[in-house]
Amino acid sequence: MTVGIVGGGQLGRMLALAGYPLGLDFLFLDRAADTPGGQVAPILCGELTDPTLLSQLAERSDVVTFDWENISVDALLTLKGTKICPPIRALAAAQDRVSEKQLFERLRIPTTRWRNVESKEHLLEAAKQVGLPGVIKTRRMGYDGKGQAVVRTAADLERAWGELGSVPLLYEDLVPFEREVSVIGVRGRRGEIAVYPLNDNVHSQGILRLTRAPYGSVKLQRLAAQYLKRVLEYFRYVGVLTIEFFVRGGALIANEMAPRVHNSGHWTIEGAATSQFENHLRAIVGLPLGSTRALGHSAMLNLIGKMPPAARLLTHEGLHLHDYGKAPRPGRKLGHCTFVEGNPRARDIRARRLLAELAPAIRIP
Amino acid sequence: MTVGIVGGGQLGRMLALAGYPLGLDFLFLDRAADTPGGQVAPILCGELTDPTLLSQLAERSDVVTFDWENISVDALLTLKGTKICPPIRALAAAQDRVSEKQLFERLRIPTTRWRNVESKEHLLEAAKQVGLPGVIKTRRMGYDGKGQAVVRTAADLERAWGELGSVPLLYEDLVPFEREVSVIGVRGRRGEIAVYPLNDNVHSQGILRLTRAPYGSVKLQRLAAQYLKRVLEYFRYVGVLTIEFFVRGGALIANEMAPRVHNSGHWTIEGAATSQFENHLRAIVGLPLGSTRALGHSAMLNLIGKMPPAARLLTHEGLHLHDYGKAPRPGRKLGHCTFVEGNPRARDIRARRLLAELAPAIRIP
Repeated sequence: MTVGIVGGGQLGRMLALAGYPLGLDFLFLDRAADTPGGQVAPILCGELTDPTLLSQLAERSDVVTFDWENISVDALLTLKGTKICPPIRALAAAQDRVSEKQLFERLRIPTTRWRNVESKEHLLEAAKQVGLPGVIKTRRMGYDGKGQAVVRTAADLERAWGELGSVPLLYEDLVPFEREVSVIGVRGRRGEIAVYPLNDNVHSQGILRLTRAPYGSVKLQRLAAQYLKRVLEYFRYVGVLTIEFFVRGGALIANEMAPRVHNSGHWTIEGAATSQFENHLRAIVGLPLGSTRALGHSAMLNLIGKMPPAARLLTHEGLHLHDYGKAPRPGRKLGHCTFVEGNPRARDIRARRLLAELAPAIRIP
Repeated sequence: MTVGIVGGGQLGRMLALAGYPLGLDFLFLDRAADTPGGQVAPILCGELTDPTLLSQLAERSDVVTFDWENISVDALLTLKGTKICPPIRALAAAQDRVSEKQLFERLRIPTTRWRNVESKEHLLEAAKQVGLPGVIKTRRMGYDGKGQAVVRTAADLERAWGELGSVPLLYEDLVPFEREVSVIGVRGRRGEIAVYPLNDNVHSQGILRLTRAPYGSVKLQRLAAQYLKRVLEYFRYVGVLTIEFFVRGGALIANEMAPRVHNSGHWTIEGAATSQFENHLRAIVGLPLGSTRALGHSAMLNLIGKMPPAARLLTHEGLHLHDYGKAPRPGRKLGHCTFVEGNPRARDIRARRLLAELAPAIRIP
């Protein structure tokens, strides 16, 4: 059975590496053959919206999925009669921050206070109603902190409008959160659902740096799983879905969702009974879901901008390296590494030590 | 860095899948593009002895290794100036049962009583000296029980000579063993050595069916590691090496060795801190070796002849499926599955249940 993947980044690559042992074949569509996915599976090279290539991908695949949420919904809609997972409706909702907020509200999932911004007047009115400080975000194409500006003063508003005002925006309050967590779950073709333990995430400059899991709050775990299930069921979703939350005063405030495997779930490769990648594939090809149980206490560190030498990283006992095969570039996610410990304390001590070596600017609680 | 692999079977495939996360690239040489390795990496198609293809492989690779021990030593020797791991001398010793026995004797590793057989007279004399029952084996190209005959009577000797007598043979005593175990270890470029816990193996009709690990005898573990280290150091070996033993009366009797990753080590993918595949690659590309610590109590079942439907296998919680992408054929290894439990009792109960479902003819102690 062949899985077609639109987008051949590191998520696609890790999907393929998780799927080969299941006996699956893969075919990517991405701009260049040397993308992380193209290094491990056949690839069709061209624009992700190219209708000819998309229909080639669909014809040669039993099911089509994607490794990036900003691909064109219109282009996917041309693929009549093709099984596409997750559902395009969920993808469309996740691509537009206004649809996403409306979805959260419809499903009674607490989110930030927000306003749609289509003009400078809208923006000033939104800042008045929601209050300062706030965050201006482009409605579309935002990822890894791109297309965002934090505003604290009227002058910030002016400047942010100058920078971002050419595209539709959203204004929301800046939540003084205690932590950021994410929940990842999977829904199978027969409606069965499995949810991973909560991820505790540390970002810096909009980019995820560190995930520790499980985050051990039973109450928040239950709450996050409830919210996730509402979205999964609303869309009759098939595949892996992620929601990111702020934690404040013992409550969860949904920040955004991603209709795909997620960077904060990379620890599941070594740290869970079944990885998020394998479970996404099991779901979309109609196999039984695997257990989402954690095997210990994991930490995952992103390797950003420049890869530390493998020979140095691998001196750390039990460290699992994942090199995505990408050329170095400032701010670019080039790989990650994961270790699994027997208890949260040992994990945190080790995470601090590793951060001090690899990313000394990052501090963790 | 590109690793060239002569032979693109399931061992090569699992090497590539273990090596991609380390940032390695792979190139296979095998007869057909749709071999298990060729499904996951580029492949040069042709005979494994083809000098032109071998030098292409060597030119495009930083290091060359092999996934099968019966490849031509003469062909490898033509690759002047190429880094080949494990060393060709070790490969040559493992290819010829007489050299292998002589090696065991030279290194004071207990083995079966044996005689070289080059004529029918030799055979009758060997049977007289070593005694009946015994086993006749072809000196070369034996694997998975092929090229072997158990002889219990003079009539058996006649028949076996008729079947096998056209090639050089070896006669050895049939050891009434209590169990079969194997030890797998790895030696790095700087001479560092790491040894995995012992594997307890169950064969049927010459083919490995089940491995359980760790096999918990401290004494046998120490003994096996000693023997393995002698071979590793003798050859200044780089990469993974396996020795199979019979256990009898608390002692180990070496049966044979394999200069490569081994079927009895497949459980290390999920059941050890670092898999045998990753450690072989770490060794041959000069990276630090990873821990060989077991993460629990593992069982690995081979899937032979016909693949059970994945949808059925994956209903077993925590079962890890490895489908090699091969066409079914009686007696052919098509895949394996592994699970890891917290204690040997739970593992054995589960192994019995799974055997009852998948291979009811196999009984385990």
